[in-house]
Amino acid sequence: MTKTITLSQGNGGEENNELIKKIFFEHFGNPTLLKCEDSAIIGSMAVTTDSFTVKPIFFNGGDIGKLAVCGTCNDLAMMGARPKYLTCSFIIEEGFSVESLEKIVLSMKKELCINGAQIITGDTKVVPKNALDGIFINTTGIGEVEMQNISSNSISTDDLIIVSGDIGRHGACIFAQREGIDIKSALQSDCASLWLVVEELIKNDIKITAMRDATRGGLSAVLNEWAKQSNICIEVEEKAVPISKEVQGICELLGFEAYNLANEGTFALAVKKEDAQKALEILKKFEICKNAQIIAKVSNEYSQKVVLNNEWGSKRFLDMPTGELLPRIC
Amino acid sequence: MTKTITLSQGNGGEENNELIKKIFFEHFGNPTLLKCEDSAIIGSMAVTTDSFTVKPIFFNGGDIGKLAVCGTCNDLAMMGARPKYLTCSFIIEEGFSVESLEKIVLSMKKELCINGAQIITGDTKVVPKNALDGIFINTTGIGEVEMQNISSNSISTDDLIIVSGDIGRHGACIFAQREGIDIKSALQSDCASLWLVVEELIKNDIKITAMRDATRGGLSAVLNEWAKQSNICIEVEEKAVPISKEVQGICELLGFEAYNLANEGTFALAVKKEDAQKALEILKKFEICKNAQIIAKVSNEYSQKVVLNNEWGSKRFLDMPTGELLPRIC
Repeated sequence: MTKTITLSQGNGGEENNELIKKIFFEHFGNPTLLKCEDSAIIGSMAVTTDSFTVKPIFFNGGDIGKLAVCGTCNDLAMMGARPKYLTCSFIIEEGFSVESLEKIVLSMKKELCINGAQIITGDTKVVPKNALDGIFINTTGIGEVEMQNISSNSISTDDLIIVSGDIGRHGACIFAQREGIDIKSALQSDCASLWLVVEELIKNDIKITAMRDATRGGLSAVLNEWAKQSNICIEVEEKAVPISKEVQGICELLGFEAYNLANEGTFALAVKKEDAQKALEILKKFEICKNAQIIAKVSNEYSQKVVLNNEWGSKRFLDMPTGELLPRIC
Repeated sequence: MTKTITLSQGNGGEENNELIKKIFFEHFGNPTLLKCEDSAIIGSMAVTTDSFTVKPIFFNGGDIGKLAVCGTCNDLAMMGARPKYLTCSFIIEEGFSVESLEKIVLSMKKELCINGAQIITGDTKVVPKNALDGIFINTTGIGEVEMQNISSNSISTDDLIIVSGDIGRHGACIFAQREGIDIKSALQSDCASLWLVVEELIKNDIKITAMRDATRGGLSAVLNEWAKQSNICIEVEEKAVPISKEVQGICELLGFEAYNLANEGTFALAVKKEDAQKALEILKKFEICKNAQIIAKVSNEYSQKVVLNNEWGSKRFLDMPTGELLPRIC
């Protein structure tokens, strides 16, 4: 490993995993931590934490406050847990606008309401100018598990993989805004709370094997982790993967893969084959999931690999993202 | 309130409380949050969160990692809760030394062990140079309440106030180091985990009315909040308050009040009169509490005030700290 921390160690991809394994798992290791996916599971309680450092703080489709509550509640939802209690810790740079802070707090309030969750405790630190750029928020979420045994380790050839919407919008949106690319309102972050969608899937007894919101590292990171953890091959039909024209445009302009771009309200599901169609129908009832698609099947064709099949019959591997990607994406 | 965030709004004193009330309580308000003291109480579960931004990161008597675990576990202990699960979120500046990170993680591990707690989930963000100075850590703690009904609202004239050790060491130490004052090893932060001490008090059936670790805002902030919340007057015998020569020296040099300086392993207790002596004996068994003293009685002499009686019979009010105090103290 490098001697100093690099941006790529926060990318949600390979270098990030290496840092976590070699430093944090090495010294903090315990069964709950090692089994932790989007949330840690303690009996019927799910717990997750995230720090948000996104820049710009206000972006098309949300702001750092909405992102914090969505991100944390979504991590609970992905483990089948109903978001209940959140803690909220602000680190604010001296000189930050109180009006902006209040706007952020109101975004959080709205999103908490959607999730039926509440802030139960918090912390505020103010640091001198230049000790921090703007504002960082940490939210820790506690949820009540309503569907047990959701796990990235259990995906098999009995499952199909669904994506809940068109991919890459959050990453493309933040990138475009940061680079000053004029994208008008057509390109919006997908930032949204997913619990109500998950709740509906659970209520309808959909046999969910695994769920994961495709944040840092994008859909590539999720599918590659699943392939590795469940020791399977995931075969993606490239033309089935929903990508908006706007995201495709940004990708072509800048040489990105939409698969690697972050999402903040789009998730991948592995569900039992017989339930896939029904799951899709449920998803499509929600505006935020109207572009949901079945995108992949599971095979043993290659060991722990993600394969992209294109419509002309050729294939390529989709690898775990590496390198810097986009810092301060969330 | 000001239009932009000021350093004084992170001081643990009056301006800090105003920000919390006008922005956070205003919009996030719910019974659990409004009743929250050092931790929020949900049934038999205590929850607390803190972000740590201390500078320097390594100081005499500890580092940001030790501080994070102590601070979070102490907030649980102060509500009579045994620290069990911690989440841990790092925000790290690109270029930060991996060796320093590992040193911080090892400090955390040691302190977790003292508390019998474990890290169950985490998050790592790496931000570009200049987006943050060094490293910030957020820890959220979940504990199991072993003594119910500890509350700052219930202190009465039946209580005596004890302080668990000599005050102001963390604040004085950070200040001295930051200003380059050569204090050798004589002045160390009091940074320490308090659960084992609290556990012993509980085991011995000490009737604890309230406990509070005297962090930002120091002993002044704790006693003033208690006076207000319990609608009492706290009469402190000035000569009974333990202050080390080193801290006294720094205070005289720089015009500080030791009462306002932060502590990170020193707490105030309100206990029933008949148990005060026994509590003191228990405290003194612990090296970190060897300087514990009974420092105050409760009266109705003035409404919601803290009075300092000096040994020559004169008195003055000890007010809630205001102004900038010391940013990045924890």
